[in-house]
Amino acid sequence: MDYKTILENIHASVQPYSCVGKVADYIPELAKVNPDKFGICLNTIDDGDYSIGDSGERFSIQSISKVFALAMALSIKGEALWSRVGKEPSGTAFNSLVQLEVEHGIPRNPFINAGAMVVADILLTSFDNSAERYLEFVRALCGKDDICYNEQVARSERETAYLNAAIANLLKYHKNIDCDVEEVLRLYFLTCSLEMNCHELARAFLAFANHAEPFSYAGIELTRSQIKRMNAIMQTCGFYDEAGEFSYLVGLPGKSGVGGGIAAICPMRYSVAVWSPRLNSKGNSVMGMKALEELTTITSESIF
Amino acid sequence: MDYKTILENIHASVQPYSCVGKVADYIPELAKVNPDKFGICLNTIDDGDYSIGDSGERFSIQSISKVFALAMALSIKGEALWSRVGKEPSGTAFNSLVQLEVEHGIPRNPFINAGAMVVADILLTSFDNSAERYLEFVRALCGKDDICYNEQVARSERETAYLNAAIANLLKYHKNIDCDVEEVLRLYFLTCSLEMNCHELARAFLAFANHAEPFSYAGIELTRSQIKRMNAIMQTCGFYDEAGEFSYLVGLPGKSGVGGGIAAICPMRYSVAVWSPRLNSKGNSVMGMKALEELTTITSESIF
Amino acid sequence: MDYKTILENIHASVQPYSCVGKVADYIPELAKVNPDKFGICLNTIDDGDYSIGDSGERFSIQSISKVFALAMALSIKGEALWSRVGKEPSGTAFNSLVQLEVEHGIPRNPFINAGAMVVADILLTSFDNSAERYLEFVRALCGKDDICYNEQVARSERETAYLNAAIANLLKYHKNIDCDVEEVLRLYFLTCSLEMNCHELARAFLAFANHAEPFSYAGIELTRSQIKRMNAIMQTCGFYDEAGEFSYLVGLPGKSGVGGGIAAICPMRYSVAVWSPRLNSKGNSVMGMKALEELTTITSESIF
Amino acid sequence: MDYKTILENIHASVQPYSCVGKVADYIPELAKVNPDKFGICLNTIDDGDYSIGDSGERFSIQSISKVFALAMALSIKGEALWSRVGKEPSGTAFNSLVQLEVEHGIPRNPFINAGAMVVADILLTSFDNSAERYLEFVRALCGKDDICYNEQVARSERETAYLNAAIANLLKYHKNIDCDVEEVLRLYFLTCSLEMNCHELARAFLAFANHAEPFSYAGIELTRSQIKRMNAIMQTCGFYDEAGEFSYLVGLPGKSGVGGGIAAICPMRYSVAVWSPRLNSKGNSVMGMKALEELTTITSESIF
Repeated sequence: MDYKTILENIHASVQPYSCVGKVADYIPELAKVNPDKFGICLNTIDDGDYSIGDSGERFSIQSISKVFALAMALSIKGEALWSRVGKEPSGTAFNSLVQLEVEHGIPRNPFINAGAMVVADILLTSFDNSAERYLEFVRALCGKDDICYNEQVARSERETAYLNAAIANLLKYHKNIDCDVEEVLRLYFLTCSLEMNCHELARAFLAFANHAEPFSYAGIELTRSQIKRMNAIMQTCGFYDEAGEFSYLVGLPGKSGVGGGIAAICPMRYSVAVWSPRLNSKGNSVMGMKALEELTTITSESIF
Repeated sequence: MDYKTILENIHASVQPYSCVGKVADYIPELAKVNPDKFGICLNTIDDGDYSIGDSGERFSIQSISKVFALAMALSIKGEALWSRVGKEPSGTAFNSLVQLEVEHGIPRNPFINAGAMVVADILLTSFDNSAERYLEFVRALCGKDDICYNEQVARSERETAYLNAAIANLLKYHKNIDCDVEEVLRLYFLTCSLEMNCHELARAFLAFANHAEPFSYAGIELTRSQIKRMNAIMQTCGFYDEAGEFSYLVGLPGKSGVGGGIAAICPMRYSVAVWSPRLNSKGNSVMGMKALEELTTITSESIF
Repeated sequence: MDYKTILENIHASVQPYSCVGKVADYIPELAKVNPDKFGICLNTIDDGDYSIGDSGERFSIQSISKVFALAMALSIKGEALWSRVGKEPSGTAFNSLVQLEVEHGIPRNPFINAGAMVVADILLTSFDNSAERYLEFVRALCGKDDICYNEQVARSERETAYLNAAIANLLKYHKNIDCDVEEVLRLYFLTCSLEMNCHELARAFLAFANHAEPFSYAGIELTRSQIKRMNAIMQTCGFYDEAGEFSYLVGLPGKSGVGGGIAAICPMRYSVAVWSPRLNSKGNSVMGMKALEELTTITSESIF
Repeated sequence: MDYKTILENIHASVQPYSCVGKVADYIPELAKVNPDKFGICLNTIDDGDYSIGDSGERFSIQSISKVFALAMALSIKGEALWSRVGKEPSGTAFNSLVQLEVEHGIPRNPFINAGAMVVADILLTSFDNSAERYLEFVRALCGKDDICYNEQVARSERETAYLNAAIANLLKYHKNIDCDVEEVLRLYFLTCSLEMNCHELARAFLAFANHAEPFSYAGIELTRSQIKRMNAIMQTCGFYDEAGEFSYLVGLPGKSGVGGGIAAICPMRYSVAVWSPRLNSKGNSVMGMKALEELTTITSESIF
C-alpha cells in the first residue's frame, strides 16, 4: 500500500474518535482552537512527503518544543548535560513536584516541565539571545523562515502558570537554575508558544529520523550517536506517563504537546506529524495517538 | 566487521570494568558464584550464533524469567491482562511498595517484582501445574530439554524474602492476587531460579527478535503484534530504574537479572545474551551493559 | 453539675448521631455486633465511678490494647525503646506502608499498626509467655480476673490480615522485628482481641490518670514521668490521622479502637471509657467522639 | 522551690548544651546574631514574672508569629477557617511540598509554612492594612507599643525564599490563595521578622495560658473554647516534626521559631518564653527545649 492510501485509510479509521477528548482549556488562547481539526503529514527519507486534512494549518506546538531545546542543550553541553537532568521515564504525571523534592532538584528527564526548565536555563546561560537562537534553529530544521512564537499565548500562559512557577522556584531552591526564575519561565513559555503546521513539524523531525545525514542547523550540531540518543529519550519519556502505552501501541519515538500535536519518527524511514486538538486525560491527542497506532499497524513498521 | 571479530573486540573493551561492581549477595547461593565470569552469545536470524568466554556456563537467570512468564500470560489473557498490571515504566526502584500503595495494588508493569507476582498468579490460575508448563515453554524456546530450576536457590530466596512477602501480601490485600500468597511466592521464586547459559538465553530470545516467524512453543502462541509489544515493554521497563539509561546507551529492548545476565534483541537481526555477575548499584551487570553498549556502537545498529 | 447528670446530658446529646457511621466489617466477628450499643463509664480519682447505657457489656478493644502493650515495653526497655519506634504523629492513615518504606522500617509511633508490631516483638523477646503476661497485666490494671482474649476474633483477623502481614514482613526486612513474622502477628492480633467493658477500661486507664499513685501492676512498673509520657503519646498519636481533630475538639489524651471503644483520661481528675460501634471514615467511633467532646465542653475541663 | 530558684537551676542545667547546635544561617541577618545568648522569662497568672539571662534582648520571633496570625484568622473566620487549612500534625519536615501536592493544596495545619501562607491570605482579604493590624494586635497582647517588624530581615528572606515561593505558587495553583502570590509572601515574611524579647513574648502568650480572662486585644476576640483550641493546635503542631518529642519531653503547648525562640504555656498557671539561637537539626532551639524540659521536670507540672 502506498503512503497516500495509508494516510487515507488512517483518516477514515480515526473518525469514530472525532468527538472523544477535550481541548486544553487552561488558557483562553488554546481553548478557542477548533476541536475538529485533524491533519497529518508523513515525510519519507527518500520519497518526499504525504499529507491529508488540516496539515497546512499552524498550531501551538507546546511540549514538542522540548525536543528542539534538548537538541540545542545536548549540542552545547554533551554528556555533561546529564548531571543536571536525568534520562529516566518519570512514572508520574508530567508536572509532579513530589519527584523533584525527593530527588533534590534533579528532574527525571528533559521532557517533563522541570527538566525543560533546566534546559531553558542552559540555553539562557549559553547564548546572549537564546530566544532568537532557538527560533533560528527550528527555522533551519524545518526550512521555513516565517515560523514564529505567539507572544500572546506565551504571556497568557505565564500569567496563570502557578504550578510551573512552583516548579521553577523549587529548581532554584535546589540550585539547579542559574538564571533568574522569571527569565527561565519566560523562555520556557516562549518556546512552547511556537506555532508550526504538520508539514513543518514532520520536516523538522526528519533530521532525527535520518541519522545517516550530518546534523548541522544554524550552528547546532549533533553526532549520529547523539541523534539516536535523542530518539531513545523520546521513546522512553516523550508521552508523560503514557510513554509505555505509546511505545506498546505505536512503537515509535515521538513527542506530544497539549496543543494536540504529536511528532514521531521511524528511524531511517520517515518522520510524521499529526494534529488533533482533543486530548485524553493524560494530555495526549486522542486521534493523534490512534492515527499513529493505525500507521504502524498498517505498515507493520515500528522500531520493534 | 564480522560478528566473531566484534565479540572479540567487545571482550577486550570490557576488561577495564572487570573488577567494578558487586555480586548479588542476599542469598548464599548467588554470592558464591565466581565474580570473574564473562560470557556472551549473539544469535543472528539468518547466520547462526557467535560466542565468546563463559557462554556455555549456566547461571541463575533471575528476573530475565519475567519475560517468559509475561509471554505466557499475554498468550492466555490477551489485552485483558492489562487490567491487572500496567505497562508504564516504574520510575522508582524495582521493589518499591510506595507506588503499589498509591496505585491501589496495580503494579506499574510486569517486570517489577509486584507485576511478576500478578503474572505468576495468572499462570497459577490458568494451569494445573504451572511450574511444569513454564519449564516446558522455556525448554521449547531454547531447544534444550535439560534446563532446570534450582530448587535450593528458590527455597533459599523464599526464606529471606521479607520484602517480596510484603509485596505479595499487599497485592492480596488489594485483591490483585487470587491464589494463596505462599503459592504465588513459590512459583515466583521457582521461575527466578531457572538456570540457563548464554547460548540458551540467546536462542530463547531469538523468538522475540524474529517476529516474521510464527511464535508457537509448547502450546504458547503470540501474534506478530504481540511479539512486538513484548519488545516494547522490555524497552521501557526491562532495566528497573535504569531503563532510560539502557535505552540511551544501548538502544535495544532487553531484560536484566541480578544473577548478572542480560538478554536483548535487535528486531529482525539478532538476539544476544551476556553474563557477568558483578552488578552496579541499580542491580544490572556492569560488564553486561558495557558489552551491549559496545555492540551497538560498533555495529551502529540499534532500534533508533 | 454532678457527673451523673453530666453523663445523662451526654447520653441525650449524642442521640442525633445514633445512626451515623458504619460498624467495622472486615471480619465477620466484628460485623455482627449490635451497632446501636452505647455505653460510657467515668471513673474519678477520688469519687468512684459513674456510668450509663451498655457500660457493662464487653466488646473487642482492638487498638486500645496498644496502650497496655506500650506500657509493658516502656517498663522493660525504658528510653531505649525509642530507637526502634518513633513518637511522632503519623500524619497519614494508620496503616500506611509509605512512611515505613521511606523511614527504613522505623514506625512513626507505637500506636500505628507497624509500631504496635515492633512493641509485640519486644514483648515476645522479653517474656517466655508474653500473651499470658499481657493478660495478667491488664487484669491487674482493671482489677478483674475474667477478662479474656477472643481467640476466634484473633484467628479470624489473622486469616484476612494481608495488609498487616505486608507491614510485618516489611519490618522484618528492615530488621526491626527479631522474632518470627507469624509469631508477632499472632500476639498482635491476640492482644487486639481482648474483650473489656467500659467499667473495666475506665478502671484500667485510671492508672494513667492518677500519676500521683505508684504504677505497679503484675510486675510492670512505670515512674511518674513515664506515665505522663504515655499520656503525651496518647495525646499526639492516639487517633490515627484524627489526632489533631480529637485534641482540638476534646482536649484529652486517649486511644480509640475499631471495635468502637475510646478510653481517655483527664490527668489527676478522671478516666473515661465510651463505646459505640459505628465508626467514621477515619475508624473512630462517631458517638464516642461526640460524647467526649460534650464531656469536656460541659465540664470545661481539658488539658488545655 | 520558687520560680526564681527554678530559673536559676534551669540556667545552670542547660550550660552543658551551650555549644550544641547551629544558628540559622540562610539569611545573613539571622546568621550574625550572637549564638551564646540565652534568656528565659516565666510569667505566672497571679504572681508576676520571673526572668534570667538575656531575657530583655529582642530577637526575630520567626515562626512564633504564626500563633498570633492564627488567633486573628480564627477570630475572623471561626470554624470556617478549617475548610482551607487542616489541624493535623504534619508528620514530615515543615516545608514539605509533597503533602501539599498529595492533599490538593490544603496545608496540614496553620503552623507549617504553607498553612501560615493561607492564614496570611485570609488576613490580607480581611483587612485593608493587614500588616498594621497584625502589629497592633501583638502590641496589645504584650502591652508594648514599640515592638516592630525588621523590614531588612523580611526583605532579605523574601529574596532567597525559593522554597517558600514554590509553596505559595502551589497554593495559588490549588486556588487556596486569593491574593497575589507576592503580596502573601510579603506579609508572611513581615510577620516572621517581628522582634520581641522574652518578657514580651511571655506576656503575649499569657493570654493563651489564662483562658479564664476574656480574650480581646485590638479588636481581636476569642472565646474561651477558642483559646483552648489554639493551645491544642500548638500542642500537636507547634514543633514541626518534633511535636511528639516536645510533647513527650516537655508536655506543654508551645511554638518555636528558627530565630531560637520558644514560647509555651501551662494552662491556668503560667506562660514562658525562652531564647537561645543554636538550633538542632529539626530547627528547634537546643537549649530552649532543654530548659523547658527541665522546667516541667522540676515543677512536675505539665498538661499530662
